[in-house]
Parts: sequence; structure tokens; C-alpha cells
Amino acid sequence: MAQFLNTKANLVTEAIDGLLAGSGGALARLDGYPHIKVVYRADWDKSKVALISGGGSGHEPAHAGFVGKGMLTAAVCGEVFASPSVEAVLAGILAVTGPAGCLLIVKNYTGDRLNFGLAAERARALGRQVEMVVVDDDIALPELPQPRGVAGTLFVHKIAGALADAGEDLKTVAEAARTVIGKVASIGMSLDTCTVPGSPKEDRIGVGKAELGLGIHGEPGVEQVDFSTAMHAMDTVVAKLGPHLGQGTYVALVNNLGSTTPLEMSVLTHALTETGIAAHLIGPAPMMTSLDMHGFSVSVMETSPRELAALQAPVDLAAWPGTKSIVPVPIGPLPDGLTPIEPIPSKNDKVRATLERVSDLLIAAEQSLNELDAKSGDGDTGSTLATAARALKGSLDRMPLADLTQLFPALGNELSQTMGGSSGVILAIFFNAAGDACANGAPVIAALREGLDRVSEVGGASVGDRTMIDALSPALSALPNGIVASATAARVGADSTASIHRARAGRAAYVPEDNLKGHNDPGAEAVALLFEGLASELKD
Amino acid sequence: MAQFLNTKANLVTEAIDGLLAGSGGALARLDGYPHIKVVYRADWDKSKVALISGGGSGHEPAHAGFVGKGMLTAAVCGEVFASPSVEAVLAGILAVTGPAGCLLIVKNYTGDRLNFGLAAERARALGRQVEMVVVDDDIALPELPQPRGVAGTLFVHKIAGALADAGEDLKTVAEAARTVIGKVASIGMSLDTCTVPGSPKEDRIGVGKAELGLGIHGEPGVEQVDFSTAMHAMDTVVAKLGPHLGQGTYVALVNNLGSTTPLEMSVLTHALTETGIAAHLIGPAPMMTSLDMHGFSVSVMETSPRELAALQAPVDLAAWPGTKSIVPVPIGPLPDGLTPIEPIPSKNDKVRATLERVSDLLIAAEQSLNELDAKSGDGDTGSTLATAARALKGSLDRMPLADLTQLFPALGNELSQTMGGSSGVILAIFFNAAGDACANGAPVIAALREGLDRVSEVGGASVGDRTMIDALSPALSALPNGIVASATAARVGADSTASIHRARAGRAAYVPEDNLKGHNDPGAEAVALLFEGLASELKD
Repeated sequence: MAQFLNTKANLVTEAIDGLLAGSGGALARLDGYPHIKVVYRADWDKSKVALISGGGSGHEPAHAGFVGKGMLTAAVCGEVFASPSVEAVLAGILAVTGPAGCLLIVKNYTGDRLNFGLAAERARALGRQVEMVVVDDDIALPELPQPRGVAGTLFVHKIAGALADAGEDLKTVAEAARTVIGKVASIGMSLDTCTVPGSPKEDRIGVGKAELGLGIHGEPGVEQVDFSTAMHAMDTVVAKLGPHLGQGTYVALVNNLGSTTPLEMSVLTHALTETGIAAHLIGPAPMMTSLDMHGFSVSVMETSPRELAALQAPVDLAAWPGTKSIVPVPIGPLPDGLTPIEPIPSKNDKVRATLERVSDLLIAAEQSLNELDAKSGDGDTGSTLATAARALKGSLDRMPLADLTQLFPALGNELSQTMGGSSGVILAIFFNAAGDACANGAPVIAALREGLDRVSEVGGASVGDRTMIDALSPALSALPNGIVASATAARVGADSTASIHRARAGRAAYVPEDNLKGHNDPGAEAVALLFEGLASELKD
Repeated sequence: MAQFLNTKANLVTEAIDGLLAGSGGALARLDGYPHIKVVYRADWDKSKVALISGGGSGHEPAHAGFVGKGMLTAAVCGEVFASPSVEAVLAGILAVTGPAGCLLIVKNYTGDRLNFGLAAERARALGRQVEMVVVDDDIALPELPQPRGVAGTLFVHKIAGALADAGEDLKTVAEAARTVIGKVASIGMSLDTCTVPGSPKEDRIGVGKAELGLGIHGEPGVEQVDFSTAMHAMDTVVAKLGPHLGQGTYVALVNNLGSTTPLEMSVLTHALTETGIAAHLIGPAPMMTSLDMHGFSVSVMETSPRELAALQAPVDLAAWPGTKSIVPVPIGPLPDGLTPIEPIPSKNDKVRATLERVSDLLIAAEQSLNELDAKSGDGDTGSTLATAARALKGSLDRMPLADLTQLFPALGNELSQTMGGSSGVILAIFFNAAGDACANGAPVIAALREGLDRVSEVGGASVGDRTMIDALSPALSALPNGIVASATAARVGADSTASIHRARAGRAAYVPEDNLKGHNDPGAEAVALLFEGLASELKD
């Protein structure tokens, strides 16, 4: 599978440089590329206990993404899924450890234990105070005496980080870290394996299956389980965590293992909060990933008030999502005004006659407009308009015919309900805006012009874009000179659309040029037919 | 492809509930499920201009993830890739708009324009002050008059958000938003299409190809280009942005379109910063995603000092990565002490004879230890030890034989370099810790015990775990009683490992039980042979 990288050899160093470039100078690195890849706080003054973590890369944002005030002091990065060397860890220790000493936070993998362990020994020989803790939060293999260290490591980073930042001494910080480690339990589930750069993707998870209890280095899960829904997946995970749950204040950390979408993570989080196992939530967010694994993990920890406060202490790190209380979601009532107020019907014979005439004209034009539309579209413009016209005729008894200020929005609402699609919405905008202008005292023609301007603004089309505006705009401009002049202008405008081969807006923007040549735009044609019909009636 | 969801019908509402659950009460929603999905600030008091955005779902964290003080007031969410209805938008407007009015920030898609546009009209008819801006930052199709709205929308959210939060009036905020829209340009590239829930995945991007200029709804890109490296991909994207770049202070927003790993995003960011086109950086982060699309986009904007300040204004939103200056990365020198100081050689015939004898014993046992190891491992324990022993014999002239405090760490460093693998590191930890204890005044046997304790701590193994500790620990315990007693104890310990069928640590933890039965652990056997050899020499 293709990936956005240059060479496998430079993958991690370039990624670190990218991370640092985006840190605004907050992060520095040691001059040890390619072998020694140590990221540390640029503002670090060694006045407090230093926290150092790290391990193989491929788990971003862990660990370098958590380097900053209140969390890690430095991260020692190995190649993808490979422990950093003793020298790299030692360089990290020596670079950031002052008189207050340092705590190494190591995930329980043999390579990491040994390399961090020997580096600690050599740093001690050089006079540094070094403590080391090993995180083993994975409960996937309950009988294994050496559980792996996974996303629960974040609890250690955050709590130890807050204590170190508060000036606690090394013994206190290390003790707190060990207490956390004793209380954290994690388990993950995935629908697919991860893609290790330069290696073919392993395809071991069958259709309808998920892996439960996987590690973060692509190692197989403890078991493959049937996968049905997010809810069932979360219930399975929570059931596994069951023995580690009890009374007390629990914090749950919901970790995206890589490529799970935010939508899915939120659905999983919803499922988790429904179980009621935790009072506080960290995430959902990618914190300890496994490259692009399509999965998630949940870590839980019973917290003392002091631990909870440490988890909640704010830090200025984009990768840390914060610790939020799980509270009932505030649900506000729907506001009034969503349903348009039914207008009070009123009578006006002239207006009624005009609307009936307009409707009849559109009904009569159904076939010809459909045929025109078929040449450049889906052939339904005539029927769409005729259907709306028939409904309009049937609604006239309910209409406030004597009051244009009310009639315009009423027409708009009627058309938006009976016409459907973009056309209905556009006409609704037209009539609503016209009504608004009327209400503000505009004369009728000015109000209609206001409606057109709003349609133009919202739809993004103007004259020359091969839409109904090409007929409606000149028709309205000519209307002060009478309906006959207006009809003439509409016809000229509609006919001009036959030579517009590039539609700039509306549906025709997606139609090949050749299909447009020589045919009027059906919407513009409808407007022209309408004004012509009204004009001829006047002449009759 | 399987996804973590329950039903497609409930996908968006459950995801919103998950997001809200993790907001700690900061976010509320309207009581309009399933049709009306409006998320808004729970603390909103309508005292300032409200900012409302939204559109189809599937772009998370946009838009609900950006609802909070300093950014959006409300987000109106449609189904996946489908515009919310007029009623939903209207509900959002009416719920949060006070006397200061509201600004609708709409991405340029017909459905969104129409539905937000009509809702605005209806809200105006109800007396609300509503302005609407349409973001059209996508430069993929330069000749298209209606460019799509993509990740550049975030510039509008943030800058308008900061101004609204500062108490600016609607006209000022809307004007600022329009100015931003006029300056933002975006383009994306992807290696794969996205997976729309409930639909089969389209497989239109061939091997070795990438799509350039894609939209965020799975629509095909403008062109398929050859894909080679991240650097080339970024150069291609930056070349497209070229006409939109110039003098001035540019901010680049690097957006993860979905499933691109943080490693890849950081490599791309490194490539971007190398081009020097921007002075400030937002991201990399998922901000405007397209479900699980394996791609990225870059948006650029020339900023005034006021706009830059608005982008940099801090907000308490996990989804917003902040705006950081791109500065030269601080690179610190490697610390002193990484290379172990070469000890000053010194002579001690007795120590030299002991080390030679130990080496010879291990060399002699090469074959038998290999054979033993072959039964439960990869058959190289004997050779590993013999190789190290031969190197040790050759190094004795360089060793500080007269000073145990120096000799122990020197032995450790020698072994870690010549032995390789876990064994070398473990012995290095053993001798370094012993040396450290010696330096602190411990007698020899106590110092060796200290070394063993450290190995136990770092390696996570103790007596009974079927490792060399099963022989070494009793041997050291018996050593005060003489080498003969010690050898006897080592032998008993080594032989006990033949009945330990479940290895709890070390390599044998991964070997099937049946392969362990009846065979001594090779490491423990080596220790026993060593002590027995030393004891027999004494007796000779």
C-alpha cells in the first residue's frame, strides 16, 4: 500500500522534523541523527524531575507529541516498532536530567526494558539519579506475567507529569507512577491489521471478524471474535475490563489505534458512556496508535482525588485531549418559529386571477418544457413546475390574497413544500425575500428585485450563467414599463441562453457543452412563457 | 468494509451524542433528533454575534468539534455527505441568535447554499439579523466559477470566531469572513478513496497513482498523477498553490483527510516547511476530513497582523491544533558521557586467571549449550557465550584488573558490545550495577547481588521463571559459604529449571510447554557449569 513517505530510512527523522517544525519552537532535538532521535522541551531548565519516555515509532502522537510542560520532558524515538538504542536513551537522560533526577517511563517490551534499563545504569554510573517504571496495562492475556504496555501509559505520563511539574521529588513522582501502573487496565479491538512501511499488509482478519486483545505492533490479537456492531464491540471490551472495575471514581481513556474515523470513535464513545463504567473521559483521540490500524482501545483507572486533579490539569499540547467529566448531555427545546405560521386567508379577485393564470400557463407548458429539458437535462422541468402549479391552484383558498406582505412568503412556503429539489428552495428564497422587502415598505417591483438579488446571492448565479435569472432579471428591469415590455425582455433573455455553452451555475454546469448548444435553458424559457402569457392576456 | 457503527440511520445522532458526552457539559444539542441535529455551546448567552456552520457529516471534527468559545456557536449536522434541512438550519439560527445577529458560514455546495440560504430568509422574516458567507477555497478546478468549500473553511471559523468573541458587530465579522474567503486557497491529494458507510468502496485509484484536487465527498479528483514520494506529492500540491502565493505573511493549514498516519502527516509537514512558502502553520491534524480518506490537503492564506492574531488566539478545543510559527528547529549538542570512558588498564594476576578460566569454561561448553538450547530455542546460547568469552580473553590487557569498581562496568561494556542481543544487555546491566554498588562501598558479593537485583527489575524475571537467575541467585546466596557450596547451589537451581514448563519471562516464554519439559534452561545451565568449573579448579 502506498504511503506518504520518502525513504523508509528517513521516515522517522523526517517525521520528527515535521513535528518540531509545527511546534513553534517549543520542541528541540539532539544533534544525533539518524541513530539518536531525542525530542525534548526547548524551554527545559532541569529545575524539576525530568520525565523521559519513548520506544519504537509508529505510535504517534506517543511519545514525542506528549513532550511539553506538564507531561514528558523528553521522548527517545526508535525506528518503527523498534526500541531505541542504549546510547539514544542515555543521550536523552543526560540531556535533560538535572539535580532532581529523572523518571524513565517504559512500556513493557523486552527491548525497551533492556535498553532503557542499561541506559539508566550507565547514567547512574555517571552520577545521575534515575528511576524507571514499567507500564504493563494490557489485560488481553491475563495469565501472562509480563503484560504489554499500551495506551494506559498515557495515565502515567499525565499524572507523573503533573506531579513533576508541581515540583514533587523523584521518589514521590516514581511512587505515584507505580501506583498508577498498578491500577490501569487496557484492552483493544481492531477490524484490520496495520500497514508497516515497507512490508506487505497482513490480511489475517476475516470478513465479519474483529481481533480482540491485540498489541500495538501488529501482533495478532488473543482471539478473533464475531463483529456485528459498535455497541457489541464496546460491550465485549467492557466485559473484559470487568474484573478491573469496581467502586470508586473511574476514568476511561478511549484511544484511536490509527485509522478509525472520528464518527466511529464518537459512536464507540457513546456506547462506552452508555455502560456507565466511568465518571470521566479522556478522548476519544489517537494517543497510542499502531500506525493505521482500524481499531480502538479502552483503558480504565480508578483515581484518587489527587490523581484526578493531575489528569485534569491543563496542558498546552495538541495531542492531549483533556479529561472531561461525563455528565448528562444538556438538551435544549426546539425553538418556536420552525413551522411557518399559517397565514390568515383573505380574498382579492385580481390577485387570484393572476395566480390562476400563471398556474395554467405552467401546466400548459409541461410537455414542451419537459422536451426542452430532455435535450440538456433529465427532462422533468415541465412536470416539476406543472405539479407545483396544480398544488398552488388548490391552495388559493388558504392564501392571504389581499396582503402581498403575507402572500409572498406564503407562496414561497407552499412552493418549497410541493416542488421539492433545488427549484422549490430557490423559489421559496425568492418569495420570502420579496415578502421581507414588502414588509420593510418596498414597492412590489422593488421587492421582487430584492428576491432575485437574494436568489442570485444564495445560488451564486447571475445574468449570463444560463439559468432562469437570464429571463427573470431583464423581465423585472422592464416591468416598470409594463407587462408587454417585460415579456419582450424575458423572451430576449431566454433566447440568449441558447448561445451560452458554458453554464456557470446550476445543474447545467455539469452538462457537456455540446448538449447545451442551440437550446434555451428550460428555467429561463419557463419565465419567458409566463411573462408572455400574462402579457397576451392583458392584450386579449 | 466493516466499520464501528450500529445502524446507518443512527450513525450521526450516536456520534453526536458521543462527542457531547466527552465535552464535559460544554456542548448541548437541540431536542430535534433524528431530523434536527444542532450542536451548540451550552454556555452561550446570545450576547455576541453567533457563528453557525455545518453541512453534511463525515468531515469530523468539522463542524461540531469546533463549537466552543472563540470559534463556532453552533453546528448544524446533516447525514453523511448530505446537507441538513432548512428546518434544521433554522432551528440552529433561532436557538443561538440574539440581538447581535448571526453569521452563517457555508461551504460552497448547492444543497448547503440553498438550505442555509432559505433558513436565513425565514429567520430574517422572524426578525433575526442574519448574514451568510460562502467558502469556496478549492482551487482544484481553476476554471469552475463555483469552487468547492473545503478545509480553508477553518480559517473563516477561527478568524470570525475570534472577532465575534471580541465583541465585534455582525457587519464587521461578516466583512472579515468575506475578506478571508477571498484570500484562502486549498488543494488536496489522496492515495485512496473514502469508505461511505453502507456503500461499497470505490476502487478507482490505481497502484502508483494519487488523486490530485479531490473533493471531500468522495468525488473523483481533477486528475490522477503519478505518486512517488511524500516530497514529490507536497511539491505537486505547492506548485498548484503557486498562483495564490506571494509576498506577505502566509499561514499554511495542513489537514489530514482521514486515515493518513501521524507519521505520514509529519513527513508531509516536513516537506511543506522545506518549501518555505509559509511563516506559520496550523496542524498537521484532521480538521476537515472525508471519512477515512488516505490523503491530505494544504490551505494557504496571506494574513494581516489582525488576522494572524485572530488565528493565534487560544481556544479550549481539542480539535483545533493551534497556529504556530515555523521557526528553525533548535538542535542541541549530544551530551558528554555517551561513550564509556576507556578504563586505565591495570594488572592483577589472580583476577586475570579467574577471567581466563571463566572464559575457557564457556568456550569449552559451546557445543553442549548449543545442543541444549536447540531443544527449546534457536540453538545459539553456547556460541553467543563462547564468542563473547573469546573477545573477553582478547581484551584482558585493556582491563582495569586491579580495581573491581572499574572492572565491573568495563566488563559490562565489553560484553554489551561483543555479545549482542538481550544477553549482552542483561550482563551489561548486571556488571554496571555491580560496579555502581562497589563504587558506593559494597563488598564484592553484595555488589554482585545488587547487579542481580537490577537485572531482575529490568528484565522482569525472578527465581522460578526459567532463566539464568534460577542458577545465579542461589549461587550468589551460597557464595559466602565458599565456591563449592555456591557451585552446588547453582547446579540445584539449574536442574530445577527442567521442571519449569511455563516460562514467565525471557525468550522461553514464547516456546510451547512441551519443548521445555525435561531440559534445563541453557542460561541457567551456563551459570551452573561456570560455578562448577571454578569450584573444581579450586579443588584441583
